[in-house]
Amino acid sequence: MIQNNLRNGERIDELQRNGYLIIQNPKRFCFGMDAVLLSGFANVKSKERVLDLGTGTGIIPLLLEAKTKGEHFTGLEIQPESADMARRSVELNHLELKIDIVTGDIKDASKYFGASSFDVITTNPPYMIGNHGLQNLQDAKTIARHEILCTLEDILRESAKILRPKGRFYMVHRPFRLSEILCLMTKYGIEPKRMKLVHPFIDREPNMVLIEGLRNGKPRLTVEKPLIVYQSDGKYTNEIYEVYGY
Amino acid sequence: MIQNNLRNGERIDELQRNGYLIIQNPKRFCFGMDAVLLSGFANVKSKERVLDLGTGTGIIPLLLEAKTKGEHFTGLEIQPESADMARRSVELNHLELKIDIVTGDIKDASKYFGASSFDVITTNPPYMIGNHGLQNLQDAKTIARHEILCTLEDILRESAKILRPKGRFYMVHRPFRLSEILCLMTKYGIEPKRMKLVHPFIDREPNMVLIEGLRNGKPRLTVEKPLIVYQSDGKYTNEIYEVYGY
Repeated sequence: MIQNNLRNGERIDELQRNGYLIIQNPKRFCFGMDAVLLSGFANVKSKERVLDLGTGTGIIPLLLEAKTKGEHFTGLEIQPESADMARRSVELNHLELKIDIVTGDIKDASKYFGASSFDVITTNPPYMIGNHGLQNLQDAKTIARHEILCTLEDILRESAKILRPKGRFYMVHRPFRLSEILCLMTKYGIEPKRMKLVHPFIDREPNMVLIEGLRNGKPRLTVEKPLIVYQSDGKYTNEIYEVYGY
Repeated sequence: MIQNNLRNGERIDELQRNGYLIIQNPKRFCFGMDAVLLSGFANVKSKERVLDLGTGTGIIPLLLEAKTKGEHFTGLEIQPESADMARRSVELNHLELKIDIVTGDIKDASKYFGASSFDVITTNPPYMIGNHGLQNLQDAKTIARHEILCTLEDILRESAKILRPKGRFYMVHRPFRLSEILCLMTKYGIEPKRMKLVHPFIDREPNMVLIEGLRNGKPRLTVEKPLIVYQSDGKYTNEIYEVYGY
């Protein structure tokens, strides 16, 4: 029965959480550690409603449903094929009452959902600026990685409208854009409140940054201790196992 | 002879660099690790001219003169007593040709020095915002720690005028103001290019941030591996000894 859900090139992977499964296609895009870390960093409380911007195959709503007591999770995705895979994963896990997937454009998100309609927004957006030199701007991986269909500013502008006052914004991104991230959050009234840098090893530069913003919050940022992914022998650190549930 | 340089309450401390000495008064303000780390983080090249904004007793010009090949170092200090101590320390080390101390207000710095007059600016400014609840706004320690006489925005606005294009700005500050720091740097065209968080121990939040900005630079921030100050047994780490010269 499960196999009937699959299209050409797709496979089913286990999420190691509640027995949940996810449909992925390696030729399109498979989720990475960034999505898993964001789902561990985001703080979703009971009865809260969560929107994931650019949800891809729905990895973040699935993990947040498993890890938190949030009431409902919505994923917005512009690529119809990815949204379709996400919807079929929701069905596969019998989560139709908890998660819904909307096909649509982040740039119009506030029109779809209305002002102050969510308690929490999460996003694992494209990291790379611009698209010069890219071969195929329609390629699913390219769209997921490069700011072709939406920019960081689009995400912050829409999030500021959609979040309720004191609603929380969670994002994973790359440290090389940290300055732009913090300035755009501030510009749109999503005050940066909590930040964690993720280092592959203790003696290496960070390759990810996790950030929490508070809509209409007061300025004061807590930079947390760094998250180290691997021990020197290449095994995950205890924090990765315990907090992020690998 | 040295003792004749001292006023009531002052003492002479060794800087462990080139045999240099500094005059300090514990009742006023003594330099901390932040100034030493900034002098190790700042990159001053041969023939460059350096301005230290809010130099206090001149610790940063003294350390930079010892550690780098910079041609000349100027310290600007608003408190006449501190500026006088700094001047006497310069004499004590026979550095009158390499370091000069100017008594004046950071808010007017670009009027004193003119546009594009320095290659490098360093600053270890007051960290704390506002002054409510403070007992004595004339107290030297209070002025050094709180934004009473100048704000972070004053420093960035003046620095942007004084630095030559592609000149470099180095600051040590507190992580809780990181967002404001990066946004003000961007606002005044001093692009954040390099950042290092300083953690007292590996498993603790950072308590300092070192930052380098480039006037008219392109956006792209390198977040370096963290600087850890103490090993678990309370001894300094090798990096503190080797790079920062403790």
